[in-house]
Amino acid sequence: MTTPHKIAIIGAGTIGLSFVALHLTTDPTCEVSIYDTRPDLESYVRASLPDYLPDSEGSNDNDDDDDDPEKKKDREQEARSALLSRLAFHATLRSAVEGATIVQEQGPESAAFKTALWPQVEQHAPAAALLWSSTSGIPASAQSRAMREPARLLVVHPYNPPHLMPLLEIVPGPATARDVVERTVRFWRARGRTPVVLEKECVGFVANRLAFALLREACSLVAAGVVSPRDLDAVVTGSMGPRWAVAGPFESYKAGGGEAGFAGFMEKIGATVGECWRESEGDYARLGVHVGGPWQSGVCEAVDGTFGPVDVRGRDRKTRGVLEAVKDAI
Amino acid sequence: MTTPHKIAIIGAGTIGLSFVALHLTTDPTCEVSIYDTRPDLESYVRASLPDYLPDSEGSNDNDDDDDDPEKKKDREQEARSALLSRLAFHATLRSAVEGATIVQEQGPESAAFKTALWPQVEQHAPAAALLWSSTSGIPASAQSRAMREPARLLVVHPYNPPHLMPLLEIVPGPATARDVVERTVRFWRARGRTPVVLEKECVGFVANRLAFALLREACSLVAAGVVSPRDLDAVVTGSMGPRWAVAGPFESYKAGGGEAGFAGFMEKIGATVGECWRESEGDYARLGVHVGGPWQSGVCEAVDGTFGPVDVRGRDRKTRGVLEAVKDAI
Repeated sequence: MTTPHKIAIIGAGTIGLSFVALHLTTDPTCEVSIYDTRPDLESYVRASLPDYLPDSEGSNDNDDDDDDPEKKKDREQEARSALLSRLAFHATLRSAVEGATIVQEQGPESAAFKTALWPQVEQHAPAAALLWSSTSGIPASAQSRAMREPARLLVVHPYNPPHLMPLLEIVPGPATARDVVERTVRFWRARGRTPVVLEKECVGFVANRLAFALLREACSLVAAGVVSPRDLDAVVTGSMGPRWAVAGPFESYKAGGGEAGFAGFMEKIGATVGECWRESEGDYARLGVHVGGPWQSGVCEAVDGTFGPVDVRGRDRKTRGVLEAVKDAI
Repeated sequence: MTTPHKIAIIGAGTIGLSFVALHLTTDPTCEVSIYDTRPDLESYVRASLPDYLPDSEGSNDNDDDDDDPEKKKDREQEARSALLSRLAFHATLRSAVEGATIVQEQGPESAAFKTALWPQVEQHAPAAALLWSSTSGIPASAQSRAMREPARLLVVHPYNPPHLMPLLEIVPGPATARDVVERTVRFWRARGRTPVVLEKECVGFVANRLAFALLREACSLVAAGVVSPRDLDAVVTGSMGPRWAVAGPFESYKAGGGEAGFAGFMEKIGATVGECWRESEGDYARLGVHVGGPWQSGVCEAVDGTFGPVDVRGRDRKTRGVLEAVKDAI
């Protein structure tokens, strides 16, 4: 596609702004329209968006003319202005989606809101526009009930924050057209991201199902008095975090099985795995590790008493470093 | 402690060799004794150990005299020889542990083997030597049954491979002396590692309990036909892997709750978390996701049909890069 994209972002919360930053920085020709009902939309976005941009974004950073920090700052300022000049602000849905090639929704997590939204989008957006919801839980099949063409809608679920995290879970509904899926995957691949298409809709999609399974075990181990929240986090950042940044669990455990692969791994340490699974189940039952169970207030208190406010800039810088390390090394 | 350490390594498998490499490279004065029953012990270790050493280990790498690759190679060769000269090989347990300051065991994962080993170690090692088991599942309280002084023993469980991964789970038994725990923690901290002391012995310790909980969910999602093994791994390396390399699950989800912290996070998306946990439990029951269940052969086949042999050098290089990125950035 050689005509520039015009991407309509519906909802200027943290996910919306993060996507705005991602689009503007990964596609030098696209235009981005933002629709949100907040009255101070433009000033709010202009003030907040820089938090989502890397420090040197768009500065044509070259080591050899790095000498003059003033000039460098000017260049950065200029590049940032150029970036922001491709933004437009809209107080109505209609004007935001008119002429859009992509409409990307991250409004309230309410089936009623989303179900009412899409027919309006259909009415005003071009027929060829891709329609994406960033929902973390309401499947396309539920959102598209009032649409004329449910085939157009799919879920593009990011891992927060999307301007950093490569993953996008692409979750078509049973009615979603294959062509819509393919164009969506091509779009993200061309921008160096990791779109993963799920075979079917499921509760929580894949990333949260995996992460919440580990979270449950983490809560259970803290509730059982085995480990403190700080030490539990130290376990993760000192072991499976860096491991899984480089290779996923299946590839890693397959490697652990040597020649015999994942089947060999399960053969060799299956007894231990089974013991762990049984013990976890027993602990969940014994300690009531379900949402709202007796463990919850104590663990929340312990966690909130442990960690100070997060240094977002620092965390993002480290995250970029991790992603670079994984990409660059051979 | 100013006298050099003399560390006796019992068992020259992959964990043993990885620890040998770790000790030799992080402590320039220590001596390492290896005891193993294999007849070709010395030639085997000399041939295998380089795989556990970083490419430029001990080469006094300076950018400014990097010009001559031949000289650099010579220097590396020399440094490596110096490293290996601090190794000694033993065909008897007695000679390996005599004079040791630390005895570190990674023999067969058999309670009988370990229970029989420690009284022999007690007999021949100095009374002040620290006694560590690398077991991934047999607690100190079980291993120390025949010891004169069970207070001396604790588990120091690495995350494979220990020459790369910072985590060491320190698991004292009820009988382990506090002083033994403290000396062990000091030892690892001084070497820039992440020792985490568990409050009590538990099945699988913490790292494997967490990782296996996620693995179970991964197996279940593949068995349910939601996602392929390759895509599941892509989800992890594109999202929670890099996130958890930088900050653990508790700190991350607390940040997700904003001002209201982890309690706010659970308040805000607790319903979704609860739905995921219930759905997972239902899937485990429906698909029989226990060890040896009906899901297992299909998932093993799918995983082993997906991934080729692992490029250990490449993976290790990336892992070092990830750990550097997390350490260096502010």
